[in-house]
Amino acid sequence: MDISTPTIIIDKDIVLKNIQKMVEKTKKNNMAFRPHFKTHQSIEVGEWFKDFGINYITVSSVSMAKCFANAGWKDITIAFPVNILEIEDINKLSEKIKLNLLVNNLETTEFLEQNIEKSTDIWIKVDVGYHRAGIPWNNFSYILEIAKKIESSSKLNFKGILVHSGNSYKSSSKSEILEVHTEALERIGSLRKKFSENSFNSIKVSAGDTPTASVADDFEGIDELRPGNFVYYDLTQLKNNSCSEEEIAIRVACPVVSKNKETMELVIYGGGIHFSKDVIQTKSGEYIFGYLTDEVNGKWKPMHKDSYVTSLSQEHGIVKTDKEHFENIQVGDVLLIVPVHSCMTVNAMGKFRLTTGEEFEAKCS
Amino acid sequence: MDISTPTIIIDKDIVLKNIQKMVEKTKKNNMAFRPHFKTHQSIEVGEWFKDFGINYITVSSVSMAKCFANAGWKDITIAFPVNILEIEDINKLSEKIKLNLLVNNLETTEFLEQNIEKSTDIWIKVDVGYHRAGIPWNNFSYILEIAKKIESSSKLNFKGILVHSGNSYKSSSKSEILEVHTEALERIGSLRKKFSENSFNSIKVSAGDTPTASVADDFEGIDELRPGNFVYYDLTQLKNNSCSEEEIAIRVACPVVSKNKETMELVIYGGGIHFSKDVIQTKSGEYIFGYLTDEVNGKWKPMHKDSYVTSLSQEHGIVKTDKEHFENIQVGDVLLIVPVHSCMTVNAMGKFRLTTGEEFEAKCS
Repeated sequence: MDISTPTIIIDKDIVLKNIQKMVEKTKKNNMAFRPHFKTHQSIEVGEWFKDFGINYITVSSVSMAKCFANAGWKDITIAFPVNILEIEDINKLSEKIKLNLLVNNLETTEFLEQNIEKSTDIWIKVDVGYHRAGIPWNNFSYILEIAKKIESSSKLNFKGILVHSGNSYKSSSKSEILEVHTEALERIGSLRKKFSENSFNSIKVSAGDTPTASVADDFEGIDELRPGNFVYYDLTQLKNNSCSEEEIAIRVACPVVSKNKETMELVIYGGGIHFSKDVIQTKSGEYIFGYLTDEVNGKWKPMHKDSYVTSLSQEHGIVKTDKEHFENIQVGDVLLIVPVHSCMTVNAMGKFRLTTGEEFEAKCS
Repeated sequence: MDISTPTIIIDKDIVLKNIQKMVEKTKKNNMAFRPHFKTHQSIEVGEWFKDFGINYITVSSVSMAKCFANAGWKDITIAFPVNILEIEDINKLSEKIKLNLLVNNLETTEFLEQNIEKSTDIWIKVDVGYHRAGIPWNNFSYILEIAKKIESSSKLNFKGILVHSGNSYKSSSKSEILEVHTEALERIGSLRKKFSENSFNSIKVSAGDTPTASVADDFEGIDELRPGNFVYYDLTQLKNNSCSEEEIAIRVACPVVSKNKETMELVIYGGGIHFSKDVIQTKSGEYIFGYLTDEVNGKWKPMHKDSYVTSLSQEHGIVKTDKEHFENIQVGDVLLIVPVHSCMTVNAMGKFRLTTGEEFEAKCS
């Protein structure tokens, strides 16, 4: 490898398999597939999706929407509650592409009614268990008030409700993920019923965290799926059983700068500014920022459970190894590390290379 | 404020006072002052240091050294153990400027002996308590072996030992910081003595974590100080009593995108990709990613201890407030938040603006 500084490596074959699998699952369940591009942030990886016939995408900011619109995407949902301070850029984007927006309160809805220039599809963000940015699912009177406000506007079209079961990330098994999913489906069903009772008969439902999208087979009541992380997966997803090790398409290559014989620790060039600082905790309470893997003939081997990153500062990483690995690794070697959170790692690095050597930007952030 | 997306705000007056104070302290103690530029990563802020007569700096990567060399800095220490894979860039830089390097093992020293092209000052990185990347202070035979190897080389000049008491960051009071510092000074003294007994009579000692640099008055045995974080400070430094609130020169301005009356929480546009994910924990065990401050007539008021960021995902932040604040804050307002770790926040954002409005890049990373 001609690598001298921390570098993200992507295995395109694995990515294509991950996309293929999700395409098949959404087709089988009659759902639209609107992948979230915040994980890869790359125009190149976007093209791989196009080859599967994907025409519409999800992003998480106005700036990301601009970037992908410039790359030719014509139908983009910004899955972040509208920030009214960006109305000027939102209106400019709406001139170019079909932009779909998200609201989670009446004030923003009223602001859009007065300030949006082009006819726009609006989703209401509803919390079905994650408790982050949605309107609680059981506060239907408020949800309905917003839906009516949207319907009454000549420029806003009420599309339906958008949910994100981010609480699935905290699961530690497939059955826990399915519990989160089942609860979400029940709440979605109840919301559909209430909307129907109030003469809203054709609302759509968009959902899309990677764990439930990966693990569940039943998506009753969901019309559109928006997972993002599945494109690369990572240690977080492996830990909660959303993916197998073979499905993780990302590594971070880091040079070894020193070895400490006493502690069997290595210092690597690779820190928080490369990985970000997301962490997983083992059952015994240890913090892990990444596991080592070897590469043989261009293929990644299984992770070394006894060789992992134990801490990260700004540029430094500390790797704990067993005796055998310690002796085989030399100063100047480049280690391959499976990161904890691929979205944040990609965002931190801004570029990547393929296992086959080509380099690309990942800067649609 | 004409701010519509998350933006770093810097108060230049506070920065200048922070620099002035450190300049005076280093002068009083007859130490060279070689500030670490990884905190601000900005050519503009570098110029502010020049106005104080600072001619030499510290950085944490070869790429950062290149960037500041291009901006006119002629004497740069890369305070990260030499990554031998970057030898080509190191040699190119040495053609342009006086570059000072750091080693922490014999293999790298031997590699430099064979591959460095210009005469270069070399520091040995010694661990006096932090246990990250230095050679343990009590492994003097190995330190001496490296020192002799450097001395025997025609191109490498042995400068002395470089320490970083990063363990001071974990202190929770000034007295704890001073304990770390006193222990470091004792170990440095013992190393000086041993070097002297081995005919190394004029070694230099470089030290420089912000907590001890801020709190200590006695620097016996230290010739050069390299703090970085003090330029902006942050919540981490406030928590360990390295700075006062008035000395924190940085805020992150974040738009409010929604309010939740039930929980008195706000959703802000501002997440891990802006703040990074460093966190402090209160005595009661609560995690805090930033405190709110108000601005009145261009001056920042004391932080609101009851209004703070409780969680961060990729773009979202959740702010917990008391009743009074909740009612006064509206969707579309811009909140000012004191970040937990200014170095990582600056690195994540890549640019900043001054309280007076001018915008600058912070991209020497």
